[in-house]
Amino acid sequence: MIIDIHGHYTTEPQQLHQFRDKQLASLADPGRRPSEDLGIGDAQLVKSVQPQLDFQKARGRDLPIFSPRASGMGHHVGDEAIGQVWSRLSNDLVHRICTLLPENFAPVGQLPQFPGAPIEGCVPELERIVKMGFVGVNLNPDPSGGYWKSPPLTDRYWYPIYEKMVELEVPAMIHVTGSCNPAVHFTGAHYINGDTTAFMQLLQGNLFKDFPDLKFVIPHGGGAVPFHWGRYRGIAQDMKKPLLGEHLLKNVFFDTCVYHLPGVELMATVIPVDNILFASEMLGAVKGIDPETGHHFDDTKRYVDQVKSLSDGDRYKIFEGNARRVYPRLDRRLAQQGKSGRKAA
Amino acid sequence: MIIDIHGHYTTEPQQLHQFRDKQLASLADPGRRPSEDLGIGDAQLVKSVQPQLDFQKARGRDLPIFSPRASGMGHHVGDEAIGQVWSRLSNDLVHRICTLLPENFAPVGQLPQFPGAPIEGCVPELERIVKMGFVGVNLNPDPSGGYWKSPPLTDRYWYPIYEKMVELEVPAMIHVTGSCNPAVHFTGAHYINGDTTAFMQLLQGNLFKDFPDLKFVIPHGGGAVPFHWGRYRGIAQDMKKPLLGEHLLKNVFFDTCVYHLPGVELMATVIPVDNILFASEMLGAVKGIDPETGHHFDDTKRYVDQVKSLSDGDRYKIFEGNARRVYPRLDRRLAQQGKSGRKAA
Repeated sequence: MIIDIHGHYTTEPQQLHQFRDKQLASLADPGRRPSEDLGIGDAQLVKSVQPQLDFQKARGRDLPIFSPRASGMGHHVGDEAIGQVWSRLSNDLVHRICTLLPENFAPVGQLPQFPGAPIEGCVPELERIVKMGFVGVNLNPDPSGGYWKSPPLTDRYWYPIYEKMVELEVPAMIHVTGSCNPAVHFTGAHYINGDTTAFMQLLQGNLFKDFPDLKFVIPHGGGAVPFHWGRYRGIAQDMKKPLLGEHLLKNVFFDTCVYHLPGVELMATVIPVDNILFASEMLGAVKGIDPETGHHFDDTKRYVDQVKSLSDGDRYKIFEGNARRVYPRLDRRLAQQGKSGRKAA
Repeated sequence: MIIDIHGHYTTEPQQLHQFRDKQLASLADPGRRPSEDLGIGDAQLVKSVQPQLDFQKARGRDLPIFSPRASGMGHHVGDEAIGQVWSRLSNDLVHRICTLLPENFAPVGQLPQFPGAPIEGCVPELERIVKMGFVGVNLNPDPSGGYWKSPPLTDRYWYPIYEKMVELEVPAMIHVTGSCNPAVHFTGAHYINGDTTAFMQLLQGNLFKDFPDLKFVIPHGGGAVPFHWGRYRGIAQDMKKPLLGEHLLKNVFFDTCVYHLPGVELMATVIPVDNILFASEMLGAVKGIDPETGHHFDDTKRYVDQVKSLSDGDRYKIFEGNARRVYPRLDRRLAQQGKSGRKAA
């Protein structure tokens, strides 16, 4: 099967956007605070993901791991209490979709992070969603939305959420949300910078000494990291760190959201195949058709299929095996559906 | 000849560091303000660049374009007046080296940018250094040092320096300085993010409609940009921008400071050869020897030499021809030394 570990719910019903408008309006005028009953029925939810289902069918993908819209998380917006409600409602919608269409989507959640607020405030929501069947979580290394005001991911500030992640066996995708910084475009700069910055934070530290079972996925192909793999190997060496394979790659994984063949070929050349997880970021950052290929930019399976250096075994790992290993709750969810992985078969 | 367009003066005499210490100490205690006579003699200056000269000889490179240490620019440090003195002294040292060793170095300057200060304050220093023979300038898109508090490069805030650059025929390398943000490592994140962010700012805007002759070099291989070339082509298309070749590539160039062969191969695959300028960032971000090749990570000429898809004509462009075109004052400086380019020959 083809597991796409990076999909977002970007076709939300209008009621969700209207709720968010009213919720943020209530900061200025408390009388505008909306009811938490969004009034979205099951049929409407199923209909809302039809575009994803159509693409899944057309592209031959079995299962996206599905989380709320990344730019919609908006951790820097409003206040902590508003963020708690927003995360809960956003996660609940994803949960309902994945319950209605359990063979088509597996749920990943967002956390109610807020700039400057202790990360402990996110632990109850993580516990709640994992109890509901979520297989992973998105963790934002910059809840300030483009100003990088949080301590690096190696700081003890983050340890309470890591302890809970390890206990619950859920990996985190390190994913920023929208940018409120006019110098930093969200999908074209902030997302990619977030990936690069997070990797470098991990390189500088020794986080996985304290958390040997913690797992992070860095999306968008790892930002700039594979392109500058020599630079990172060299900086690690200058810093007297172990080789990156030892230092980071037992715990850090990259997705394939890189929208052209040469980029995916580079990844497959420098990043060990065990650390590459298939993904498309669908329906996501880039919606159009590449005039150079005639195919959608985000149809990343085509690129992986074309990389000549990969064996069938490699492709199994990228498309399925690695996801089952990094997301053990996904593996169990699939096994319960009668879909065991190759090793377990 | 081999022109290396990205070299920094990173072997400065101790007197320069001592000056900077005293200068910054004077913020707290004005009595510590140092004399601007650094007491560095010509022989000491020549000796200080011996490591670069040795590498030049060993690696077969004729000419680095040489600017003050990038992380040393420290635009966010101190106040505007201190930055003016610091830029002037730093540029003067580079000028003296390039005058003492005119066949070994060509000068590029730093500007006395300061967060929030009008960019007009940098125009006199740009005029001064170009009059002294400088062929280019480094422009910092984030003088806040990792917090991105300046308007994007397409904003009219920057126009006065662009007007002067065009008038004087000097390109700018878009290069951040050190990071004062504990979340953002300088060479491993801030530099690369700076490149990516600047490119995306340019993509979003239409700056080169207003300045058709303005030229920018984005260092470190363009940050994440070539790796995500499909993403940027796709985002530009979604934004109804022209194709990137038309929209940006008449004015935006990338250097080859990418420290492994697969990265340079990717660049050569997706970026037109007319937009690639040879560089090593020497002595720079990564000082060690790659255990996988037995050669220095920053010996980037080896990578360019190994890219099979490049013709001899392509290599001439990357190593020399493009630099002469993007830096017309360099071309004239070389011609005055009796070293004309291929076309002029």
